[in-house]
Amino acid sequence: MRLLIRQVTAIPLDGEHDLLPEVDIAIEDGRIRAVGVVSPDFVPEQIIDGREFLALPAFFNAHTHAAMTLERGWAEDLPFDRWLNEKIWVAESALEEEDVYWGAMLACSEMIRCGIVGFADHYFWMHQVARAVAEAGMKAHLAWCQFGIGAEHEVGGATLEDTVAFIREWHGAEDGRIRCALGPHSPYMCPPEFLRRVVEEAGRLGVGIHLHVAESQEQVANSLRAHSRTPVAHLAYLGVFDHPTIAAHCIAVTDEDLAILADKGVYVAHTPKTYMKLAMGMAPLDRFLAAGVRVALGTDGPASNNDLNMLEVLRITGLVHKNRVGDPAAFPHDLLLRLAAQESARALGFGAGAGSVLPTGVLRPGAPADLILMDTCGVHWTPRHDLAANVVYASHPADVRYVFCEGRPLLWDGKLVTLDEERIRYEAERRAFRMVGTPMRQVRRYRG
Amino acid sequence: MRLLIRQVTAIPLDGEHDLLPEVDIAIEDGRIRAVGVVSPDFVPEQIIDGREFLALPAFFNAHTHAAMTLERGWAEDLPFDRWLNEKIWVAESALEEEDVYWGAMLACSEMIRCGIVGFADHYFWMHQVARAVAEAGMKAHLAWCQFGIGAEHEVGGATLEDTVAFIREWHGAEDGRIRCALGPHSPYMCPPEFLRRVVEEAGRLGVGIHLHVAESQEQVANSLRAHSRTPVAHLAYLGVFDHPTIAAHCIAVTDEDLAILADKGVYVAHTPKTYMKLAMGMAPLDRFLAAGVRVALGTDGPASNNDLNMLEVLRITGLVHKNRVGDPAAFPHDLLLRLAAQESARALGFGAGAGSVLPTGVLRPGAPADLILMDTCGVHWTPRHDLAANVVYASHPADVRYVFCEGRPLLWDGKLVTLDEERIRYEAERRAFRMVGTPMRQVRRYRG
Repeated sequence: MRLLIRQVTAIPLDGEHDLLPEVDIAIEDGRIRAVGVVSPDFVPEQIIDGREFLALPAFFNAHTHAAMTLERGWAEDLPFDRWLNEKIWVAESALEEEDVYWGAMLACSEMIRCGIVGFADHYFWMHQVARAVAEAGMKAHLAWCQFGIGAEHEVGGATLEDTVAFIREWHGAEDGRIRCALGPHSPYMCPPEFLRRVVEEAGRLGVGIHLHVAESQEQVANSLRAHSRTPVAHLAYLGVFDHPTIAAHCIAVTDEDLAILADKGVYVAHTPKTYMKLAMGMAPLDRFLAAGVRVALGTDGPASNNDLNMLEVLRITGLVHKNRVGDPAAFPHDLLLRLAAQESARALGFGAGAGSVLPTGVLRPGAPADLILMDTCGVHWTPRHDLAANVVYASHPADVRYVFCEGRPLLWDGKLVTLDEERIRYEAERRAFRMVGTPMRQVRRYRG
Repeated sequence: MRLLIRQVTAIPLDGEHDLLPEVDIAIEDGRIRAVGVVSPDFVPEQIIDGREFLALPAFFNAHTHAAMTLERGWAEDLPFDRWLNEKIWVAESALEEEDVYWGAMLACSEMIRCGIVGFADHYFWMHQVARAVAEAGMKAHLAWCQFGIGAEHEVGGATLEDTVAFIREWHGAEDGRIRCALGPHSPYMCPPEFLRRVVEEAGRLGVGIHLHVAESQEQVANSLRAHSRTPVAHLAYLGVFDHPTIAAHCIAVTDEDLAILADKGVYVAHTPKTYMKLAMGMAPLDRFLAAGVRVALGTDGPASNNDLNMLEVLRITGLVHKNRVGDPAAFPHDLLLRLAAQESARALGFGAGAGSVLPTGVLRPGAPADLILMDTCGVHWTPRHDLAANVVYASHPADVRYVFCEGRPLLWDGKLVTLDEERIRYEAERRAFRMVGTPMRQVRRYRG
């Protein structure tokens, strides 16, 4: 499709312009063809009047468990062990394969609605997530979670061989929009010999690894006891970081850990809303950045943080870390936007980096047309002194009116294009209520 | 108007029911007449099909500077002193009386859209805010800010006598929906002799006091040096707390301070987003509650925190304080809802308390019909395991579809009833750009 967005104000994140007022943006064959003056040769098939909108690069969500959206609000205001043992694991013990598909479809709907075009997912039955991503027209980095203690102990019980088959089937599918990775749960759940097998397979398949790392001081203490190394050093020793890695959380890290992460080019996925809601403390974003560690932003799964709102992730990241370091000038809004649009995309393997020469997360000719248009006419956007500040600190998901993934519209004038929202809501809620069993049946009565 | 909301699910905050599924709510003469079964005698003039909605008590915003919405996004990512001296005070030096009216109209529009029906405002030219509140049909608690060092030094330069005249004109106006208070800025800006005059006037007029208290350890140290008392003890000594008081912030407080605040029934207005964005630290909500201090929630002004989104205040309050105290079970969502709907209303003088026998912030026969209807059909509300959790941790302002203040609709099916949003946006943006002067003229070009 050849699309022309006329007279739109843009935040290009191109390192040159804070704001481009009233430019035209031409999109063709999934790429941005022009920003600014569009050649008269370009004959658009569709035109959007951009005067009421702000264009900016779309967001990528660097760590989530999409299907756990089925557990949104199911385990509220509980101590962590009761949250996990009495609620989350009980619900997941009732999880069926097809639930993962509908949970992922629900998550895709919500993510598109807040400007996310790609996400890194870590869960079970990942071919069901891949189906959902393909239907949604999004990009994704998919890792099948494994504990490495025998498939019979795992939800969606798959052997490492099964997940290798999944990767062979789906890695690079949908014109490269789906990427796959190995997904060992974490160094505290997975035995070292399993992690060694994961490293071997990653090398054989040429894919990355996505896992949870160093979520608490207790995990660090246990790792030191068991392996005489911190979780980060343990993973480096096993060779995990010799492959492109998304390390979610890294809340409890030493300076030596940070040096390793920086040296190995590991992407830390930072999901602050979960840390707060589950009272896990806070990962040191300032130390990550000072040490040269690559940082991507994510939502985590809605079972722990209740939604997939990337605008809120940007906002909370700025607010929390300004206050943590005691400097209101720290973590400026353009940094936050770059983390969510550029670094998160790179964490997933999309954009500049190994195997790609294309810029990503930027509005510039040649870049993939992953962009969103936000309505700037709400009273909460008035006055428009600083549009980037409005995005980060005042905007609402409903302001996202158009979302394009490689030029394909996923949201058009506020309506989902690729997904049937009504059916998804129905299937997802029906399955979610089934999973949590009898006590929740009565909730059905409350349904609108 | 006699209004019937049919088959709506309600969070009544009545201390008895977490949730009332599929009830009818009858509203007449500004009050809730029935919740549950409505007598066939009740002949409604209008009916809302409530099946897709959640009804809950409306929110009150216990501390803001409404007209400072004109400075939203005007002073981003700066150290505090540059934020204040180079930006906020420069903009305010260009403030004209009529700007306050349009800034307040803008703020009212945004507040209604996120379910707020009443707010405590602290600013200048407060008769202009009163005009806006009257037009909006909201409730308000209005305090004219004074520094007490001579009217010629003040924006909107009014003497104490002028503000007394304002209070005589507006206190109790609009059928009691507008209440007034004295508004000395703070113990660190106002000389003790001025605060004594304020106390005298409050007694004479029978009104309360609204001021800023103990925002930093530096203020506490200065107060100890100048008055040999903490700011809280100093205000108590001067008799300020012998009148109903809203004390905004109280970030730096001792246990003795908390005992005073609890004993005197002072309402602390807690506005955590501002504390984070300006890196001010965090007020100890857990200690307030443990000491029996009354707590209300607020947004503060958008010059410092960028919006007036009460749903976000609820969310941030829960997230921040769960993590601060290290307990995910702390600050449960029903507590947060009660603070925003009931305690904040009481802080403003609406509802149970001196001079009133009516319950407030509750869906129960006899209560004022201050309530909102939220659309629960968004994908971000699915599944509906826990509607209160969805409100606090996943909802968006756009989900607020109806807002009633004493039975009068301020928002109806997502549209503002009492305010002309287009004109307000135009006037507010024009004035905001004028205030900040030449460098911002170019921004006009970016306007949609």
